[in-house]
Amino acid sequence: MIDQLINKIKQTNNPTVVGLDPRLNLVPKAIREEMFDIYGKTPEAVAKAYLKFNKGIIDEVYDLVPAVKPQVAMYEQLGAVGIQSYIDTISYAKEKGLVIIGDIKRSDIASTAKSYAEGHIGLVDVEGEKFEIYKEDFITLNPFLGIDSVEPYFEACKTRNKGLFLLVKTSNPNSGQLQDLRVENQYLYEYVGGLVSKWGEDMIGESGFSKIGAVVGATHSEQGIRLRAQMPHTFFLVPGYGAQGATAEDLAGTFDKNGLGSIVNSSRGIIAAYQKDCYKEFGEANYGKAARQAVIDMRDDLNRVL
Amino acid sequence: MIDQLINKIKQTNNPTVVGLDPRLNLVPKAIREEMFDIYGKTPEAVAKAYLKFNKGIIDEVYDLVPAVKPQVAMYEQLGAVGIQSYIDTISYAKEKGLVIIGDIKRSDIASTAKSYAEGHIGLVDVEGEKFEIYKEDFITLNPFLGIDSVEPYFEACKTRNKGLFLLVKTSNPNSGQLQDLRVENQYLYEYVGGLVSKWGEDMIGESGFSKIGAVVGATHSEQGIRLRAQMPHTFFLVPGYGAQGATAEDLAGTFDKNGLGSIVNSSRGIIAAYQKDCYKEFGEANYGKAARQAVIDMRDDLNRVL
Repeated sequence: MIDQLINKIKQTNNPTVVGLDPRLNLVPKAIREEMFDIYGKTPEAVAKAYLKFNKGIIDEVYDLVPAVKPQVAMYEQLGAVGIQSYIDTISYAKEKGLVIIGDIKRSDIASTAKSYAEGHIGLVDVEGEKFEIYKEDFITLNPFLGIDSVEPYFEACKTRNKGLFLLVKTSNPNSGQLQDLRVENQYLYEYVGGLVSKWGEDMIGESGFSKIGAVVGATHSEQGIRLRAQMPHTFFLVPGYGAQGATAEDLAGTFDKNGLGSIVNSSRGIIAAYQKDCYKEFGEANYGKAARQAVIDMRDDLNRVL
Repeated sequence: MIDQLINKIKQTNNPTVVGLDPRLNLVPKAIREEMFDIYGKTPEAVAKAYLKFNKGIIDEVYDLVPAVKPQVAMYEQLGAVGIQSYIDTISYAKEKGLVIIGDIKRSDIASTAKSYAEGHIGLVDVEGEKFEIYKEDFITLNPFLGIDSVEPYFEACKTRNKGLFLLVKTSNPNSGQLQDLRVENQYLYEYVGGLVSKWGEDMIGESGFSKIGAVVGATHSEQGIRLRAQMPHTFFLVPGYGAQGATAEDLAGTFDKNGLGSIVNSSRGIIAAYQKDCYKEFGEANYGKAARQAVIDMRDDLNRVL
């Protein structure tokens, strides 16, 4: 799937992934009211509103971007109806040909990790009947528990052409509290980067990149440059652009000399573009068109520095 | 809730938490067949089987243990029907007066962490209507992203009497790959322990323990002793007993001189006790009674060393 992702980045000339992280205050009033009328002011109404909202975004951006990244927390918080909305969002985006990065950041071991792997990127076996449940192409994981928390996902990567993005350096203000500690003459995030790189060594595709990728926040540009040099075969998922304050220049160093190597996430900046002054003329009803314009502007902004 | 948990440990004279981590091969055939007859060989049948299985365990152990710890992965892998089974399991256990530790090990920041917090231990606000979705009393979290991944949960801890268990030292064989690295003249897990201890300083209850607890694996006894000394006000959730190989002696050092300070998890060793040679006489139909006996034996084994 890493090769397909990179092909789609080349086709669209756009290393942007749209973060489908809905919150109720980002959803246009008309969609909210429609669902409240049917389901009342309930978590079910919110879950249905998120799905409709997402479809409106996907319809307008699927030809311009390689991938979408739904953040499971926004759906999970609503309970079972939310999880169904997450699954239905993924199905819809897949029908439109998009690569799916499930932002789940799970972190567990042994039979627990195996359960996550089966559900999200593998198959759930009910006494011989096999079910694909979530159908993500990639998922994010937190490797703080070591190889035991990552290895249970390798089988699905190898046999079902799936991929992972493992947290190496995150984009939050206090990510350095642990990740920037010095260990064995390097930063902890570099040490983790070295492990991630090694774990992915035997899963490198035709593109030259491994199925085992890394999350590398864009908020500190020198760190991105250092990790790109250290991990030439590791593809990066880069959060932090836009709403979190990182600019195209900040993250340029996470790309290689061919202009590849990273896919950059923007969530609110795209899905709620219609709320921003610069896209206000689209109006709430055309929130999808506003998202489309925001994707075009982001693509051009990134290509400016590549 | 930390004070309630400790009171319940004293009442039951039992620092055991039963891990409700069902797998299909742990569920007695009669329950499986019943659900397959109704729902076919589907994830829905599995989700319903887990709920019925859990109820059979809870009915037999609720008077003997302070708490249960459902592992969300087992349910999540089944999709929306699985999440409903997780929620229904929690509701049932709460009706029986048990404290609920949701083993979710989430790790995210900002509005994402806030979403998890609202859903799991807080309230989801649908334009003024408030909903409790998962209703755990405690949840586990992975603190690798630093304070930004923990602080969004503090409000619910403070205002809704909830609690957290943050991963400090895990029980898996390769937990040392990152957690045992040397940083600033100590092990990384000790450094994390120091942070966890500090973060919980202003949430210490009448019991002398903070609402912010730690996960401390029992598989390395010296580490448990060191962390107990370092973190006198931090309550520990201790995995690793039984199926993962740790003995009562291995984890005795995680308790303080009053015989308090830890709650010890056992999952398979209790819920699938009926499959073990020593409890085989109960038979599949009496899997709940076998679990009850396993809880009594574990309680006595732990009290032997306290």
